[in-house]
Amino acid sequence: MSVTAAKGFTAAGIAAGIKENGNPDLALVVNDGPRRAAAGVFTSNRVKAAPVLWSEQVLGGGELTAVVLNSGGANACTGPKGFQDTHATAEKVAESLNTAGHDGTGGHAPGHVAVCSTGLIGVLLPMDKLLPGVDRAVAQLSPHGGEKAAIAIKTTDTVHKTCVVTRDGWTVGGMAKGAGMLAPGLATMLVVLTTDADLDSGVLDRALRAATRVTFDRVDSDGCMSTNDTVLLLASGASGVTPGYEEFAEAVRAVCDDLGQQLIRDAEGASKDIRVEVVNAASEQDAVQVGRSIARNNLLKCAIHGEDPNWGRVLSAIGTTGAAFEPDQLNVAINGVWVCKNGSVGEDRDLVDMRYREVHIVADLAAGTETATIWTNDLTADYVHENSAYSS
Amino acid sequence: MSVTAAKGFTAAGIAAGIKENGNPDLALVVNDGPRRAAAGVFTSNRVKAAPVLWSEQVLGGGELTAVVLNSGGANACTGPKGFQDTHATAEKVAESLNTAGHDGTGGHAPGHVAVCSTGLIGVLLPMDKLLPGVDRAVAQLSPHGGEKAAIAIKTTDTVHKTCVVTRDGWTVGGMAKGAGMLAPGLATMLVVLTTDADLDSGVLDRALRAATRVTFDRVDSDGCMSTNDTVLLLASGASGVTPGYEEFAEAVRAVCDDLGQQLIRDAEGASKDIRVEVVNAASEQDAVQVGRSIARNNLLKCAIHGEDPNWGRVLSAIGTTGAAFEPDQLNVAINGVWVCKNGSVGEDRDLVDMRYREVHIVADLAAGTETATIWTNDLTADYVHENSAYSS
Repeated sequence: MSVTAAKGFTAAGIAAGIKENGNPDLALVVNDGPRRAAAGVFTSNRVKAAPVLWSEQVLGGGELTAVVLNSGGANACTGPKGFQDTHATAEKVAESLNTAGHDGTGGHAPGHVAVCSTGLIGVLLPMDKLLPGVDRAVAQLSPHGGEKAAIAIKTTDTVHKTCVVTRDGWTVGGMAKGAGMLAPGLATMLVVLTTDADLDSGVLDRALRAATRVTFDRVDSDGCMSTNDTVLLLASGASGVTPGYEEFAEAVRAVCDDLGQQLIRDAEGASKDIRVEVVNAASEQDAVQVGRSIARNNLLKCAIHGEDPNWGRVLSAIGTTGAAFEPDQLNVAINGVWVCKNGSVGEDRDLVDMRYREVHIVADLAAGTETATIWTNDLTADYVHENSAYSS
Repeated sequence: MSVTAAKGFTAAGIAAGIKENGNPDLALVVNDGPRRAAAGVFTSNRVKAAPVLWSEQVLGGGELTAVVLNSGGANACTGPKGFQDTHATAEKVAESLNTAGHDGTGGHAPGHVAVCSTGLIGVLLPMDKLLPGVDRAVAQLSPHGGEKAAIAIKTTDTVHKTCVVTRDGWTVGGMAKGAGMLAPGLATMLVVLTTDADLDSGVLDRALRAATRVTFDRVDSDGCMSTNDTVLLLASGASGVTPGYEEFAEAVRAVCDDLGQQLIRDAEGASKDIRVEVVNAASEQDAVQVGRSIARNNLLKCAIHGEDPNWGRVLSAIGTTGAAFEPDQLNVAINGVWVCKNGSVGEDRDLVDMRYREVHIVADLAAGTETATIWTNDLTADYVHENSAYSS
């Protein structure tokens, strides 16, 4: 059901010909109201793609009536022409929606249309295919179109990713794409969340930032940060229900958490999903820093691939951080076995069962009470192949 | 010739049985004087192996009479017993050298013997093999033993690494090991440099720090920082020549630079050596930060492996740093072709010839006049295999 599970939204996904292989590559999500509140978070990469610059700008007013997304090209590092193309896409969406009578409660303007792109960096989009595609997507808009939209935003994703949470009379749904270049700030992804809860953009913004901080921002598949990350949350108010903040924030966090897990499970070439849990840190910041250092250690990621509980590489990664800890008080458990105690040899490493896809590493800093969990993957020959055999 | 190219040094390399495969695993370098000045730099990893803690301590006096090195075990994360083993090794070396009459200009004491270890983290050394090995190494000490010593410190190295620079009446020679876990601060390695120049430990320390800062510290094969890095410089004074500081520092830098290059060329699984040159940075620190970010980008390293001049991944890596730059003023050249100009598409990427082992990436930040060069490698399926198929 994806983004159309919440009332008040229609969506479509089509093949516009942006991808040379003919796969679906253009998605459209329209908020039919009555409300058009929206919030978004974007990549912290300082090299931002044209659609990110555009969408950050149009979100200033806290209102979006539509989101258009394309795969098959990131429109990043494409200069002034790239930005013009993004602008032209938003104009085309507004015009086409108005012409088709999808004018909801006041019509569409380019300044209320967010644009998201994903694919190869440094290549201009084929506008001669993209713009006619917008008309075809508008013609196929449907309250059941969420699934097709989720499929159209895939790049190296092997599966499309959707999630729906329904509460007392209202719903939060969403779709995500992402399989590589996954690293904090945000993980590389495009995500559109929708809700029919009746909330203003200030509440949406607060709930979305709180959710992404502990979900997408803690997915770190390969340490590589994208130029195009975008997470949008749109509210239609169509349920007529205004939930309390905590209840709503919890639902948004649940959807983000689930979609984040789906990203990790589909990470390029991965054979293991690794949950790095840092406990007893002096601060949450320390816990996150240590978790990321472990999650980005190529040697450890190779060892996990080989089902080798190589805790020495965990300690080596912890040692590169500035977090508060004493080397001779560090403890590490892998899949429940405390293989390292007090910075030295602990329980027998042969007791560690590494046969399953999920691997759980606990790093105990013995320096406080804070905790954080980072999700990552193993590093495999398939990852190398997928990222060296062709441009992506 | 390695560490015995400089007058006043003897060395040996033997198989003590620390490695299960029977390969050489114990090296000894002895300074026969008349001077016994020494300096050293060590890993910046906060989790330091026992031999690093020991050697830092004994170097406090600026004097070393011998260095004993073992491969086959890092003696890292081994607790109090590991430190006792390091201490016992130094005691054994001093005792055995004195017994054998290698007492040079005042005999040997444990407090003047540095210890270096490399191999798997978290395993105690087989002292029942190592200590008898010390006696056999002492018995084989020779002014021609440098080559054997260099061979005995190999771990996953496919070749042993040595370098000699001779100036007007004096010499700097050295040996190095290192093939993985190569990252700044220092690159993972054991290095022993020797000179017969007549210099005190203060001058040695200054020249060594200046050299490692721009050589070993800028080798970043896989972003992984070791617990055991050690670079030692010993001076015998046996040439009777006291060169000027600049001349001496240049010779030490030349040897470090050459050994650093050898480490990169032998990096685990690598098929490409990548020179990342950052130019027109606002500060040297910015240049180093950007260079490291590029050098550690797994996606770029995979692309280079696939001979794909994927400059988008270079910009994406630059964008994660806090260095001074404007995204629309960045320029990137790969093997001489400016594939990115002003943050956007530049010259035709098909012009880039990627057939050769060396790849040269220039990142122009257009923000100042400072520059730095970081060396790294591509990321390959062979690297994954080598680091997942068995513990290392």
